[in-house]
Amino acid sequence: MEKTSSDSLPLTVNSSEKHETVCIFGTGDFGRSLGLKMLQCGYSIVFGSRNPHMSSLLPSDAEVLSYSEAAQKSDVIIITVHREHYDFLTELIEVLNGKILVDVSNNLKINQYPESNAEYLAQLVPGARVVKAFNTISAWALQSGALDASRQVFVCGNDSKAKQRVMDIVRTLGLTPLDQGSLMAAKEIENYPLQLFPLWKFPFYLSAVLCAFLFFYCVIREVIYPYVHEKKDSTFRMAISIPNRVFPIAALTLLALVYLPGVIAAILQLYRGTKYRRFPDWLDHWMLCRKQLGLIALGFAFLHVIYTLVIPIRYYVRWMSRNMTITQATTKKENPFSTSTAWLNDSYISLGILGFFLFVLLGITSLPSVSNTVNWREFRFVQSKLGYLTLILCTAHTLVYGGKRFLSPSILRWYLPSAYVIALIIPCTVLVSKFILILPCIDRTLTRIRQGWERNSKSSKSALNGKTDI
Amino acid sequence: MEKTSSDSLPLTVNSSEKHETVCIFGTGDFGRSLGLKMLQCGYSIVFGSRNPHMSSLLPSDAEVLSYSEAAQKSDVIIITVHREHYDFLTELIEVLNGKILVDVSNNLKINQYPESNAEYLAQLVPGARVVKAFNTISAWALQSGALDASRQVFVCGNDSKAKQRVMDIVRTLGLTPLDQGSLMAAKEIENYPLQLFPLWKFPFYLSAVLCAFLFFYCVIREVIYPYVHEKKDSTFRMAISIPNRVFPIAALTLLALVYLPGVIAAILQLYRGTKYRRFPDWLDHWMLCRKQLGLIALGFAFLHVIYTLVIPIRYYVRWMSRNMTITQATTKKENPFSTSTAWLNDSYISLGILGFFLFVLLGITSLPSVSNTVNWREFRFVQSKLGYLTLILCTAHTLVYGGKRFLSPSILRWYLPSAYVIALIIPCTVLVSKFILILPCIDRTLTRIRQGWERNSKSSKSALNGKTDI
Amino acid sequence: MEKTSSDSLPLTVNSSEKHETVCIFGTGDFGRSLGLKMLQCGYSIVFGSRNPHMSSLLPSDAEVLSYSEAAQKSDVIIITVHREHYDFLTELIEVLNGKILVDVSNNLKINQYPESNAEYLAQLVPGARVVKAFNTISAWALQSGALDASRQVFVCGNDSKAKQRVMDIVRTLGLTPLDQGSLMAAKEIENYPLQLFPLWKFPFYLSAVLCAFLFFYCVIREVIYPYVHEKKDSTFRMAISIPNRVFPIAALTLLALVYLPGVIAAILQLYRGTKYRRFPDWLDHWMLCRKQLGLIALGFAFLHVIYTLVIPIRYYVRWMSRNMTITQATTKKENPFSTSTAWLNDSYISLGILGFFLFVLLGITSLPSVSNTVNWREFRFVQSKLGYLTLILCTAHTLVYGGKRFLSPSILRWYLPSAYVIALIIPCTVLVSKFILILPCIDRTLTRIRQGWERNSKSSKSALNGKTDI
Repeated sequence: MEKTSSDSLPLTVNSSEKHETVCIFGTGDFGRSLGLKMLQCGYSIVFGSRNPHMSSLLPSDAEVLSYSEAAQKSDVIIITVHREHYDFLTELIEVLNGKILVDVSNNLKINQYPESNAEYLAQLVPGARVVKAFNTISAWALQSGALDASRQVFVCGNDSKAKQRVMDIVRTLGLTPLDQGSLMAAKEIENYPLQLFPLWKFPFYLSAVLCAFLFFYCVIREVIYPYVHEKKDSTFRMAISIPNRVFPIAALTLLALVYLPGVIAAILQLYRGTKYRRFPDWLDHWMLCRKQLGLIALGFAFLHVIYTLVIPIRYYVRWMSRNMTITQATTKKENPFSTSTAWLNDSYISLGILGFFLFVLLGITSLPSVSNTVNWREFRFVQSKLGYLTLILCTAHTLVYGGKRFLSPSILRWYLPSAYVIALIIPCTVLVSKFILILPCIDRTLTRIRQGWERNSKSSKSALNGKTDI
Repeated sequence: MEKTSSDSLPLTVNSSEKHETVCIFGTGDFGRSLGLKMLQCGYSIVFGSRNPHMSSLLPSDAEVLSYSEAAQKSDVIIITVHREHYDFLTELIEVLNGKILVDVSNNLKINQYPESNAEYLAQLVPGARVVKAFNTISAWALQSGALDASRQVFVCGNDSKAKQRVMDIVRTLGLTPLDQGSLMAAKEIENYPLQLFPLWKFPFYLSAVLCAFLFFYCVIREVIYPYVHEKKDSTFRMAISIPNRVFPIAALTLLALVYLPGVIAAILQLYRGTKYRRFPDWLDHWMLCRKQLGLIALGFAFLHVIYTLVIPIRYYVRWMSRNMTITQATTKKENPFSTSTAWLNDSYISLGILGFFLFVLLGITSLPSVSNTVNWREFRFVQSKLGYLTLILCTAHTLVYGGKRFLSPSILRWYLPSAYVIALIIPCTVLVSKFILILPCIDRTLTRIRQGWERNSKSSKSALNGKTDI
Repeated sequence: MEKTSSDSLPLTVNSSEKHETVCIFGTGDFGRSLGLKMLQCGYSIVFGSRNPHMSSLLPSDAEVLSYSEAAQKSDVIIITVHREHYDFLTELIEVLNGKILVDVSNNLKINQYPESNAEYLAQLVPGARVVKAFNTISAWALQSGALDASRQVFVCGNDSKAKQRVMDIVRTLGLTPLDQGSLMAAKEIENYPLQLFPLWKFPFYLSAVLCAFLFFYCVIREVIYPYVHEKKDSTFRMAISIPNRVFPIAALTLLALVYLPGVIAAILQLYRGTKYRRFPDWLDHWMLCRKQLGLIALGFAFLHVIYTLVIPIRYYVRWMSRNMTITQATTKKENPFSTSTAWLNDSYISLGILGFFLFVLLGITSLPSVSNTVNWREFRFVQSKLGYLTLILCTAHTLVYGGKRFLSPSILRWYLPSAYVIALIIPCTVLVSKFILILPCIDRTLTRIRQGWERNSKSSKSALNGKTDI
């Protein structure tokens, strides 16, 4: 039996891997790099080329033959040619029959062609077993070994044995194959390397608009207003003072926007009396980019912290402080110590520091490698419990910062309230709604809905199902 | 031979994966989400349900049949039903004979039942091959694709072929299967998602107790003492000044506690004259949570840094500084520059910054993805050499901070020394012990013990064995 | 067919994994730990020992036999004996024929022996199938489960079935096997755990030399010069003031050195008129350690930020500030507010903060787990676009900091310019060169060269090839 089992071992290549031959069509950068890497990993490589005698810079251990000669040497043929030049393959249809063709191509734009390159290849050579792979790997990374970006190789194909063969090659090269299913997934795989942070787009634009609005709001109140009323040049405030108002407000607002969709979803479920109806698309999308919103908020919070810590270094602040001291010394005015001011001042600083600390913790746990080591209960504990605590601390920080000035009308300039008042709108809304939602009576209904209960009786049997099933 | 090898390919499913059918018992959230995901990955899904005609919200491509009809359609049956309702499976024993049953259930409490759900299932349906899997994956994560927490799927089962089948499904869904051995591991796998940071528990409570003690100690010295003796209201110090004493002391003490068990272990080995005796349990447990202790210490150090950097922004500090300047200006008293004070002051700040910097480095290298890229020699170099350097720098920072005041009796209030004196006890003990342990004569003995040498001659032959073996 | 496929399943061990027997030669720490771990994972373990009756501390479930008896019990034999003691295996050649021998040994020095331990083992026992594995795993980590450093097990061997068997064992133990090809890779695998940050060596020494040079330069200008000319003791400046000059200069210079090799490579390609010639070795090496250079630069930038933020806390600064206030108060000299100074001062602080913020972002995206989740386009966008923006901001920060003083001759001391002037040389060179390289006419040529075009016509056909291939 030992012997038969070794004869029928199909997944691993031949008994001594060194002699398995793989054919590469095309001698461009990627073909050469891949060939070199495969040679290093023990494969024999034969290149197929239009002009086998003209090809330069190929690894010296590799054979270079014409396309049809090369194709006959191996079961696996990697096509490192641009899609526009696939036509030559139609002449090789007979040779390629039954072979595994690996499509590694990428396009220049998302959805450039109606069908994916791999599907197009499968149409051109109907007898071949086409597998999509390697398109997310860069030639330079293969060559230098500096696979910093990603070791993941998405693989898809209709023939599972062919796919398995390719995945074995991927593994042998020290990369991680990820089976993406049938060739229908090729389009998505081909679009993947062309994406530029798709989930970050909405949070980024939102925060850009928010910052621009806040910046102009503050410029009006703190630069234009003093200039109009007192002819004072405060333009220098645009370098530090105003950013240090914009950043904390943006941070707090974005942090509140992370928790707002959860509150809206709960209200929707309560209103509908069931969880068995899809949320609107905008809410789904919003929920999916909460992590990105939170990380951008953390970025703003970080900037706010540093902009605040440099305050005593600034020329303007030192000049002000010195002048105040001199004025007080010369006028001999008393300046008694106010314990309540000290309390208020120290409290809002302390609340801010603790809020920032928890925020940084949240950011660290959202690192992929950290979140991979925690289970769901731990992840939810951190992201929900600690997240709300962060929001509460940061909102309290802003409230105490406002202190008594909060509702004083003297703070209005051209009927515009202080910027931090704006910062409080969304966070307070979220916190008040959340507080109402966790009142026992409402929380109980919500929990029942989430366990499958439905308010209108018609579908109660399906609800019953839902309660016994997971 | 090509042909036979392709016929006997058992690991991958059928030739065109799209048509493999998997059966899911139960139409709850998890069943539905898993079914949808598997449909997307090319499987055919048939749901088994008590009321096949009443089930709503199922993916439209899936069939819904009665349990026994559904079971006949597939070799692999995923049971997404709560353990309490497993009884209905006893009626299907004949249909389920030889089938692969995948238990995905979780409990509400750790060790809720004497045997694991999967083992219970195996008892109920003795003819089936039970595999535990998927219990760490959340339905919401499957549906939304936001698998932030973990892509790891723990798999266990007594039948390795059945396990292999399930692991193939896991891989096809883009998740990472982790073989945990036989079904005996199911209990641990079922407890895993119910845990809440088990390794963090002891370090967390320890640091909470430490902080509470230090806080009250400082309140007595800095709030109650001045109030009793001078009727001065210093309560505002509780917001920043006192936390900024508590945090650095807690940080330094916890950091020393990271290195203390290593020192104790070395002393134990020296005392016993052998390494072939187990350490007491408390020492083993302590050693396992050193990383968590260190990270909590880093958190306190981070807070200490920010609380220190905000000092010049505080109202109290600005008020003090202004008053001192005015007093000096009006009294026209000289205040000569003291180079030695400048040296002391700058040194302890500089030592603190460098210590914190190394501490942050230690924290970064303990991130899972970073520590995965270093080998053992590098990991030990960072965690041991750099770790001790951090401890030395931070202890020196505290010593220089104390400076000349250190032993002055005027610092005692109600016989209580300054808080930072307490901070130095454990770090200095660790550093002195470590220094003694690396003295050449002692280090030589310790190294011999760690290489397998034993002091009492009886077991010298086993020691001899130990020296030739790794 | 079901039945035959199950008979010929070779990759997974026997039907019930629990009974597969693995033999371990040697009863040292590593042998014992590995044996215990394998027992826990369902293997039967039999130890081979010189003195089977003397061996202590072995897991109680394991059998201990003589070498030849033990070897007969299993196909897989793990040799946990030092290379120096391999000789005894020559007596067992017959028993070991056809067996899989797993070499787990490490050496004490890199390239200690002419051939790797695994190749030496293969020569000693020619009939056996030698596989190298497990040498990167520590005994302590296996035992405690604290596999913090690395779960990766490098595996190599000439017999792919044997290798597959070993990789299955590795996977069952919860570790990640990485196929490194034939036994020729054993040398590299054996050297791996002896390396100490090989890619960090050059950046580390470079930055150490840079820091030492800058430190002495600043000591001459700021400590020795004032002492010689004014008999002023400024030695205390060595604790904070001078490091806070050295660190930002080192940071900016190293950051510029990250982008310099890219610029040099582009110029070389333009000059040669082709990309089909290898870069000199030093340039290749430089390009490979750019990430390390950048991270060290980030470390210096981090130190610079904290050293800057503590400025107002320093005794020297507080003393200076108080004296200046008093002088101004007593002399009643006016000190009008200068908007342009405020602008300059706030701008360079703000530029520095933004530069540091982007730098931290760059650092975070270079964490392995983060860079694994982005595709190449995103990685390049961050590392190139954001990287250059960081360099521009940090250079501008230094330029504005210099401000008007920049070219004033009064700043020279002993003909030495201010240190920050030195900081600007490399960054400005890089930025100017890059600016020239992205001028449309030059950029067009460079892009064509990078797409495979060559200036001299001889090899135009190979260039043609290059253009159709990827």
